[in-house]
Amino acid sequence: SKYEYVRHFETVDKVLPNTWLVVRIDGRGFHRFSQTHEFQKPNDRRALELMNQCAIEVMKDIKDIILAYGQSDEFSFVLPKSCNLYSRRASKIASTVASLFAANYVMHWGKYFGDHKLQYAPCFDSRVVCYPSDQNLRDYLSWRQADCHINNLYNTTFWAIVHSGKTEIESEEILRGTFSKDKHEILFTNHNINYNKLEDIYKKGSTIIRKKTLVTSISPNTGKPVERTKLVPCALYDDIIGQEFWDTYPELLKER
Amino acid sequence: SKYEYVRHFETVDKVLPNTWLVVRIDGRGFHRFSQTHEFQKPNDRRALELMNQCAIEVMKDIKDIILAYGQSDEFSFVLPKSCNLYSRRASKIASTVASLFAANYVMHWGKYFGDHKLQYAPCFDSRVVCYPSDQNLRDYLSWRQADCHINNLYNTTFWAIVHSGKTEIESEEILRGTFSKDKHEILFTNHNINYNKLEDIYKKGSTIIRKKTLVTSISPNTGKPVERTKLVPCALYDDIIGQEFWDTYPELLKER
Amino acid sequence: SKYEYVRHFETVDKVLPNTWLVVRIDGRGFHRFSQTHEFQKPNDRRALELMNQCAIEVMKDIKDIILAYGQSDEFSFVLPKSCNLYSRRASKIASTVASLFAANYVMHWGKYFGDHKLQYAPCFDSRVVCYPSDQNLRDYLSWRQADCHINNLYNTTFWAIVHSGKTEIESEEILRGTFSKDKHEILFTNHNINYNKLEDIYKKGSTIIRKKTLVTSISPNTGKPVERTKLVPCALYDDIIGQEFWDTYPELLKER
Amino acid sequence: SKYEYVRHFETVDKVLPNTWLVVRIDGRGFHRFSQTHEFQKPNDRRALELMNQCAIEVMKDIKDIILAYGQSDEFSFVLPKSCNLYSRRASKIASTVASLFAANYVMHWGKYFGDHKLQYAPCFDSRVVCYPSDQNLRDYLSWRQADCHINNLYNTTFWAIVHSGKTEIESEEILRGTFSKDKHEILFTNHNINYNKLEDIYKKGSTIIRKKTLVTSISPNTGKPVERTKLVPCALYDDIIGQEFWDTYPELLKER
Ligand SMILES: Nc1nc2c(ncn2[C@H]2C[C@H](O)[C@@H](COP(=O)(O)OP(=O)(O)OP(=O)(O)O)O2)c(=O)[nH]1
Ligand SMILES: Nc1nc2c(ncn2[C@H]2C[C@H](O)[C@@H](COP(=O)(O)OP(=O)(O)OP(=O)(O)O)O2)c(=O)[nH]1
Ligand SMILES: Nc1nc2c(ncn2[C@H]2C[C@H](O)[C@@H](COP(=O)(O)OP(=O)(O)OP(=O)(O)O)O2)c(=O)[nH]1
Ligand SMILES: Nc1nc2c(ncn2[C@H]2C[C@H](O)[C@@H](COP(=O)(O)OP(=O)(O)OP(=O)(O)O)O2)c(=O)[nH]1
Ligand SMILES: O=P(O)(O)OP(=O)(O)OP(=O)(O)O
Ligand SMILES: O=P(O)(O)OP(=O)(O)OP(=O)(O)O
Ligand SMILES: O=P(O)(O)OP(=O)(O)OP(=O)(O)O
Ligand SMILES: O=P(O)(O)OP(=O)(O)OP(=O)(O)O
Ligand SMILES: [Mg+2]
Ligand SMILES: [Mg+2]
Ligand SMILES: [Mg+2]
Ligand SMILES: [Mg+2]
Ligand SMILES: [Mg+2]
Ligand SMILES: [Mg+2]
Ligand SMILES: [Mg+2]
Ligand SMILES: [Mg+2]
Ligand SMILES: [Mg+2]
Ligand SMILES: [Mg+2]
Ligand SMILES: [Mg+2]
Ligand SMILES: [Mg+2]
Repeated sequence: SKYEYVRHFETVDKVLPNTWLVVRIDGRGFHRFSQTHEFQKPNDRRALELMNQCAIEVMKDIKDIILAYGQSDEFSFVLPKSCNLYSRRASKIASTVASLFAANYVMHWGKYFGDHKLQYAPCFDSRVVCYPSDQNLRDYLSWRQADCHINNLYNTTFWAIVHSGKTEIESEEILRGTFSKDKHEILFTNHNINYNKLEDIYKKGSTIIRKKTLVTSISPNTGKPVERTKLVPCALYDDIIGQEFWDTYPELLKER
Repeated sequence: SKYEYVRHFETVDKVLPNTWLVVRIDGRGFHRFSQTHEFQKPNDRRALELMNQCAIEVMKDIKDIILAYGQSDEFSFVLPKSCNLYSRRASKIASTVASLFAANYVMHWGKYFGDHKLQYAPCFDSRVVCYPSDQNLRDYLSWRQADCHINNLYNTTFWAIVHSGKTEIESEEILRGTFSKDKHEILFTNHNINYNKLEDIYKKGSTIIRKKTLVTSISPNTGKPVERTKLVPCALYDDIIGQEFWDTYPELLKER
Repeated sequence: SKYEYVRHFETVDKVLPNTWLVVRIDGRGFHRFSQTHEFQKPNDRRALELMNQCAIEVMKDIKDIILAYGQSDEFSFVLPKSCNLYSRRASKIASTVASLFAANYVMHWGKYFGDHKLQYAPCFDSRVVCYPSDQNLRDYLSWRQADCHINNLYNTTFWAIVHSGKTEIESEEILRGTFSKDKHEILFTNHNINYNKLEDIYKKGSTIIRKKTLVTSISPNTGKPVERTKLVPCALYDDIIGQEFWDTYPELLKER
Repeated sequence: SKYEYVRHFETVDKVLPNTWLVVRIDGRGFHRFSQTHEFQKPNDRRALELMNQCAIEVMKDIKDIILAYGQSDEFSFVLPKSCNLYSRRASKIASTVASLFAANYVMHWGKYFGDHKLQYAPCFDSRVVCYPSDQNLRDYLSWRQADCHINNLYNTTFWAIVHSGKTEIESEEILRGTFSKDKHEILFTNHNINYNKLEDIYKKGSTIIRKKTLVTSISPNTGKPVERTKLVPCALYDDIIGQEFWDTYPELLKER
């Protein structure tokens, strides 16, 4: 039709080839969302596991993703340098990941929150970032995991102080200017919490990778159970800053 | 942390100021989705009304949107030239609209599809397009409504022929090379359908605008009902190509 | 060849259709360039006229340009909303304007600077900016002309004080915190200069538009002189902030 | 001023960090330019040496450039992954290289073309392309050198046939569908030219790298000549597709 010229106003937004792609989604206004839905403080196990489930669903759907890392209300999805999903169109990639994640969040809410009703639709922003080198990619993931650690140590200490009877304002003041070491000390001495003994999912965040798994299915021909290995997305709570993780899963950084 | 440098790999994707913004979302793989969920052919009223509800929910949340136009598995949201949502960052705008829409799709599924279970998460791609002039914006909307008309006329005729006993391949052949007029003719003569009498929601798609509406709420002070006018998103099934619509709602194109 | 894949690493950089395009070039390091070549202070007539000549040469070559505005070491070239030069590829447009300008600067140097030798190659950066509305375009040009005025008033006063015997540091101190009115006053009272009487090329900058001009050429058939009108780029030193200029040349903003 | 808002219409065009940058300039309309200035066919030594001189001048000015490769009317300039020139703003980088090159072309014209007058200003387009890996960068340069070879073999054979008395149309027909081997054969058998013995500058193009060179200058203190080594841009006519070149100059690809 004579209106089709408007098509040409769309911008071509292909991202540079031969670079790692990271899609990071982050909950919009989850400060309020976590309050409305009475998330436990500092960490709500149900909320984190729901996030992980959503990331796993996204990975089941979008096969290009090789790894995902999540913490708090965010998840980062890693696509390999050779990835040609949607011809590397940034808006297509960013929006499908975000909308898949959000739809799954609603679908699986009940499994984690039971009768606790979902009050309003969750929303996630999304962006695509290119990282040229393996080191850049690892530094990106280290950045997110370091962020997880810093926030979690702060939040854990903050809520321990609050739960011991201080107001939120007093707790903030107590923590102002403290270093990591000081927070460990406060937790241990005043609240009898050994931070290092807390669960890794809180301290390290969640890393989803595809693991070779033995799955049993019923053969459509014989009607009998058949075993085969399949790559299944699984959550780990490992340190991904150090070298060990990358030595354990060398195929992650391999050319493909 | 020493990893923060990776922040600088993010690209600034602000869209040009003083242009109309259109966010168009489109269902990913809805050919399959509509089959899996047994959408009625050519149009499934439930599916369209669910789409409209989602668009209304998006508009309730994102106040900048002044109009939305939807048909089939797509919806276009119009933001005014002066809009500064997320400082006009394209990926933020596109991804939040898509994820809000998708989450609402799941939340409201049951209201329209009842026991008919949602089999898997719906997904929508999303893009932001700038239109400098009012004419460009109107031509964009005309493009989408003309597309609705063309597809709907084709689909209506196609399925009428199929329902009369032909195979899908035969129907396709019958329609090859036909013009609009021919399809009207086939519908009327062979299938006793006056296309013009079909419901407007199918022929014109759905246009959501904010209408001044009288709403009654209970005063928190007096406990008595209070009436006030409020802008409430409502669906219309009007022609938006012609001048009349824009004369009826002159504030839509006004500077703000 | 097997190397051709590298082509796909080039980004598509088309600018939005139906917007005014401004290409602004600016001399790189002209602080040093003007010192090396002993430009007169505050304004070197030869330098400004050379700039104008270069802009005129650019306009003779690139027919899409409808107006150019220059001051100091910069020039802005205006392309109409309908312009499709290089399919609106930003890097093509920006680089050809800059390199044409620079090459002409060298070619025409001698005409303005005579024996005064060009010491090293001049260099200009270049950028393309989109302006959606006529008002935006006019505001852009007003911005540059206001900038010209502010700088010229400052520089004129500064060098008047210096020429009266103060050091540059003393002059700077005298001018610190002064308003426009104060500078006029200083110029008039202390240096006997009526700023308003200075030449417009300094106060207003230079605006190049295409004017219908009677040109005489020798007919290749008859060998006799023939007269015809032609659009020839000419420099004006007008106020382009006010309405008058745009009323005088109404075709500038007309749709084309 | 109240007009400054127009500043925000400029787009941020920083290119991805940690990637090789290539700035390629190419003469605009050099088909005509080479005719007007009677370039020798298939290769004009003066034109090529002028191009090389311009590239050398650009490298003397822009210290970030580590290598340049040129052939025909084009030159590619390589900037290292760590380069932060103009904060990696693409339009700044592209336009300054193009305008510097063009200005130098005019400045040095006389040295190569003597009395042969420059008829009009040369113009070069310019673009910046990112290459993430060393292999991508080498493939880019191989692409340009392979292009040089293919064109030069064609042009050499074409003009040999023309000079032997055929029309240009006949020559084109003779060459249609021929392979590299055939052209070598035609040159050798019919025109007594051993292609491999032609000068490397034509067959390989020109590669400019910075070589440690002993330079003698007069000490400003003692007035006596002093020797020191300096990195000076020099033209080579080497094969840059094979490994040997990169082994000979290992510092080119080193991290810096
Ligand atoms: N109580 C609780 N809150 C959580 C948990 N996970 C995330 N949150 C909350 C804490 C933060 O307020 C918020 C995440 O911070 P953000 O920086 O993403 O801010 P927010 O989402 O509010 O704003 P945004 O739209 O992302 O700019 O989510 C949890 O497990 N428990
Ligand atoms: N039966 C039925 N199908 C519908 C209805 N609305 C949309 N659809 C289906 C018909 C089309 O196959 C599909 C929309 O076409 P698209 O061009 O968006 O294709 P699709 O979503 O499959 O692929 P995409 O991921 O958008 O490229 O959705 C409906 O009301 N009834
Ligand atoms: N003496 C004199 N200097 C002039 C004249 N026109 C321009 N200039 C000088 C004054 C400024 O130092 C310089 C223009 O200022 P810019 O802000 O463009 O700075 P510059 O070109 O040095 O740096 P840039 O590379 O543009 O960031 O050119 C003139 O007519 N006479
Ligand atoms: N006779 C002769 N011509 C040359 C020489 N070097 C380059 N040229 C000419 C041959 C080609 O027509 C032209 C380069 O081809 P391009 O593909 O760059 O085309 P052109 O510059 O005409 O158009 P463009 O503006 O780049 O699209 O320059 C030379 O040494 N001798
Ligand atoms: O959202 P924040 O504050 O965690 O930080 P960010 O995500 O880097 O900021 P933005 O969402 O504005 O890009
Ligand atoms: O998806 P289509 O085929 O309706 O057309 P499009 O949306 O314009 O194409 P794309 O989704 O690839 O931008
Ligand atoms: O160069 P300036 O300082 O006059 O200001 P600008 O041109 O807006 O800055 P930049 O050249 O860095 O875009
Ligand atoms: O200019 P060409 O034809 O050699 O090829 P190109 O430079 O890749 O094309 P363009 O200049 O249009 O980008
Ligand atoms: Mg954020
Ligand atoms: Mg958040
Ligand atoms: Mg967050
Ligand atoms: Mg599509
Ligand atoms: Mg679809
Ligand atoms: Mg569709
Ligand atoms: Mg500048
Ligand atoms: Mg300057
Ligand atoms: Mg300047
Ligand atoms: Mg080209
Ligand atoms: Mg060329
Ligand atoms: Mg060329």
